[in-house]
Amino acid sequence: MDFTKTIQGNDGKPTGQLVSTSEMAIETEQEANDLMEKVVNLCKRRGFIFPSAEIYGGFRSTYDYGPLGVLMLRNVKDAWWRSMVQMRHDVVGIDAAILSSPKIWAASGHLENFTDPLVDCKSCKERSREDQLETVEITEERLVAWTKRGWNVPSGLSQGDEIPVCKSCGSVDLTPARAFNLMFKTNVGPVEESGSEAYLRPETAQGMFVNFANVLNTSRKKPPFGIAQMGKSFRNEITPGNFVFRTREFEQMELEFFVPPSEADKWFEYWLSERYNWYKNLGIPDSSIKLRHHDKEELSHYSTGTCDVEFLYPWGWGELEGIANRTDYDLTQHSKFSGEKLEYFDQASGERYTPHVIEPAAGATRAMMAFLLSAYGEDEVGGEPRTVLKLHPDLAPYKVAVLPLSKKEPLIELANQVFDNLKVSYMCDYDETQSIGKRYRRQDEIGTPLCVTVDFDSLDDQCVTIRDRDTTLQSRIPITELSPTILEKLTVSEKEDIRN
Amino acid sequence: MDFTKTIQGNDGKPTGQLVSTSEMAIETEQEANDLMEKVVNLCKRRGFIFPSAEIYGGFRSTYDYGPLGVLMLRNVKDAWWRSMVQMRHDVVGIDAAILSSPKIWAASGHLENFTDPLVDCKSCKERSREDQLETVEITEERLVAWTKRGWNVPSGLSQGDEIPVCKSCGSVDLTPARAFNLMFKTNVGPVEESGSEAYLRPETAQGMFVNFANVLNTSRKKPPFGIAQMGKSFRNEITPGNFVFRTREFEQMELEFFVPPSEADKWFEYWLSERYNWYKNLGIPDSSIKLRHHDKEELSHYSTGTCDVEFLYPWGWGELEGIANRTDYDLTQHSKFSGEKLEYFDQASGERYTPHVIEPAAGATRAMMAFLLSAYGEDEVGGEPRTVLKLHPDLAPYKVAVLPLSKKEPLIELANQVFDNLKVSYMCDYDETQSIGKRYRRQDEIGTPLCVTVDFDSLDDQCVTIRDRDTTLQSRIPITELSPTILEKLTVSEKEDIRN
Repeated sequence: MDFTKTIQGNDGKPTGQLVSTSEMAIETEQEANDLMEKVVNLCKRRGFIFPSAEIYGGFRSTYDYGPLGVLMLRNVKDAWWRSMVQMRHDVVGIDAAILSSPKIWAASGHLENFTDPLVDCKSCKERSREDQLETVEITEERLVAWTKRGWNVPSGLSQGDEIPVCKSCGSVDLTPARAFNLMFKTNVGPVEESGSEAYLRPETAQGMFVNFANVLNTSRKKPPFGIAQMGKSFRNEITPGNFVFRTREFEQMELEFFVPPSEADKWFEYWLSERYNWYKNLGIPDSSIKLRHHDKEELSHYSTGTCDVEFLYPWGWGELEGIANRTDYDLTQHSKFSGEKLEYFDQASGERYTPHVIEPAAGATRAMMAFLLSAYGEDEVGGEPRTVLKLHPDLAPYKVAVLPLSKKEPLIELANQVFDNLKVSYMCDYDETQSIGKRYRRQDEIGTPLCVTVDFDSLDDQCVTIRDRDTTLQSRIPITELSPTILEKLTVSEKEDIRN
Repeated sequence: MDFTKTIQGNDGKPTGQLVSTSEMAIETEQEANDLMEKVVNLCKRRGFIFPSAEIYGGFRSTYDYGPLGVLMLRNVKDAWWRSMVQMRHDVVGIDAAILSSPKIWAASGHLENFTDPLVDCKSCKERSREDQLETVEITEERLVAWTKRGWNVPSGLSQGDEIPVCKSCGSVDLTPARAFNLMFKTNVGPVEESGSEAYLRPETAQGMFVNFANVLNTSRKKPPFGIAQMGKSFRNEITPGNFVFRTREFEQMELEFFVPPSEADKWFEYWLSERYNWYKNLGIPDSSIKLRHHDKEELSHYSTGTCDVEFLYPWGWGELEGIANRTDYDLTQHSKFSGEKLEYFDQASGERYTPHVIEPAAGATRAMMAFLLSAYGEDEVGGEPRTVLKLHPDLAPYKVAVLPLSKKEPLIELANQVFDNLKVSYMCDYDETQSIGKRYRRQDEIGTPLCVTVDFDSLDDQCVTIRDRDTTLQSRIPITELSPTILEKLTVSEKEDIRN
């Protein structure tokens, strides 16, 4: 991983400076790797993300979200849903099935085109993606050595040419590449035969296209309007990796926004800006996020324009979300394959047309990882080192932790009353073990914005101490003012840049 | 479907009266079937639930949740999560992967035992569940007829015996039954071989058992405590049906509650009562819900006690949720198969033990169907028939609909202001088409508890009309009082029986 090269090299808009994904300035590859390792360790140690089936040695790059991870992932998805569905009157949601008909993927082009080129090594049987193999130049000496080992050089190549080599054994005797489809296949019903095949959806998007007419008829929407969906998708990636950045099972958050063809460019720009700001408002710093427009050669066959929201991962810039102008490709394809008209008839103008589609497609699990990387920080409090996750309050697993200073009655009873009042409005933690200092550190490390401490004086003065994660400042307030104070503190943070 | 027989026949605790799943008393099989048809039609017509891939003729009993269905399903799940996780400090959540290791299902017993007995017809190749075949008596005449058609009677049977017949062609020439595993299988990674097999989880429960040690170590909980999970599960049912009652892809909401062995019975009773009341509080009427304890012969091999929360579906009583005492079976099995200790060490008593598990296992999609059936009603308003879904406000897709009396400015501007203020707190609908009466009917039919009408007087007096779904009563209030009024109306309903 050449970190510095990556951040300066892979697009036309250099940021002009080294960047910081958190308050610690990251200036070297080593520091970037360290950050990654620290966040992965924190995720495991504190119950954000576990390797799946860990007691059985893990299972093929799948992950389970632990007690804190499931809360944070819910928060990421809720924030998306709120912004994309609840706060708008031009978007409705759906939740389509994962098990899906081959007919959908024939129409969408996935059966034919959603493939990676794979080659097999004839010596050791290792299977690799052709585009990820290294090559060597064919020389006289090498030809002799290869022949000795019984490796055949594919016909058509000669000295001076580059030839791919097996990553595992070094052989050059590889099969020609064949297209390997990345969709997971299974069989539905009691008989395993070609008619019983089903695919796990590799994207949520097609669920929206296939339901276009149903949604149009039942929701009384008209273009421009959108259909939003969150849910699991599955891709049989040959090389998953980088923690939850690329996994075979992942969670998508996609919007298909249907517009009159003449308005496509305008809405494309609109959604670029909306989505970029969504990440920024939830705590991704300026220096770690940028837009990158795809070159003409990079575009999918159906797209007239695609732009990625990129994040500066520890290994370099990478996709966080893709925003594409998919034109009328999908509706036209499904119309052709199903025989159903997928058009909109505008009664006012008397015009009938197939809407064009702007698609902001985000990954919930990938976004969660970016938020964690951005929030991770280390500082000193009272001369002691501390780890802190400066998560946006909307994303923090717990909003408030209730901490009684002792495990004894009647303190516990009062602390439980405080907890019971707060839990109605907020996801709260309750912790009565070890010293109060240690408990503050534990809450800082998991990003809890506010701690409420119930102490012996609380019994007399009916006041508690409220402590701020970011400033570590404490103030004492009456229990009766706790709810409005918390509401204000969590809301105020929303309007400020929480990283300052 | 013999409806009356079913409700009186299948358990030891008859309700003693014919029942009503809604305000319409249902007294005949015909009426029950009608209710089912009406609810299924409403779901399709208004965008709750669509057959999946409908433009391609549907796909194998899968369903897509439309704009209203996705909101209601979210509400059902949020209500469960709130009650099971947020409102407690003895339960944490997880979200485990769907793609799962065969090792998990070897340990749990699913690889061996999660099967249906299937037979093949040797004549027409139809495959059926043995326990669902009808039988006929073997007679002299039949033996002659069968021999003429070339059908062999399995050895060991003779005249007077009952013999199963193929549902499709009537043949008695069937293969012996073999165990058909209900788990969906797929292959992970680039090579299809036995080592690459993965299963789609048939239940979420095992994710909690496999993560027991990880959760214990990271969450600082101790028994009694629980791990909760919501998510998709997959079972290759031979006979899915009854709309979304039994589908191959479905959504579970499961809690595994780990307790000291001596407390298992107490907690079993506790969770029976908690879960029964959860459904009742969300609008299932007394007459449509009951507890049914399993007989000894019905129990799974690992369970010492199971009780179903049953609902009176239009076709009779059926499972809504199962509450089981799973003992230490699962933790012991996973400990044996993985070699990891899955125990709890109680520092106070110095005792080490494997916790027993009480499992309330609910289905989100099935629960949604029960809530819809219970809420469906027909009455008359102002001499006109109306369809109304008397959904609990927590479950209603939209809490409030904002309805401007005209599409003209400046009325629309004011209506949008009202909508924009409310959407921050509530999922709101906005509808400006057709007459106000029709719009009220549309909102009644999808269960929106409150409508807010903005009319021409609103521009002058800054007041709006708020209308109640259940009483159809309207009152006029200042816009400034709208938020607190709505909050009160939605909350008051929570505390009352909304069906009265």
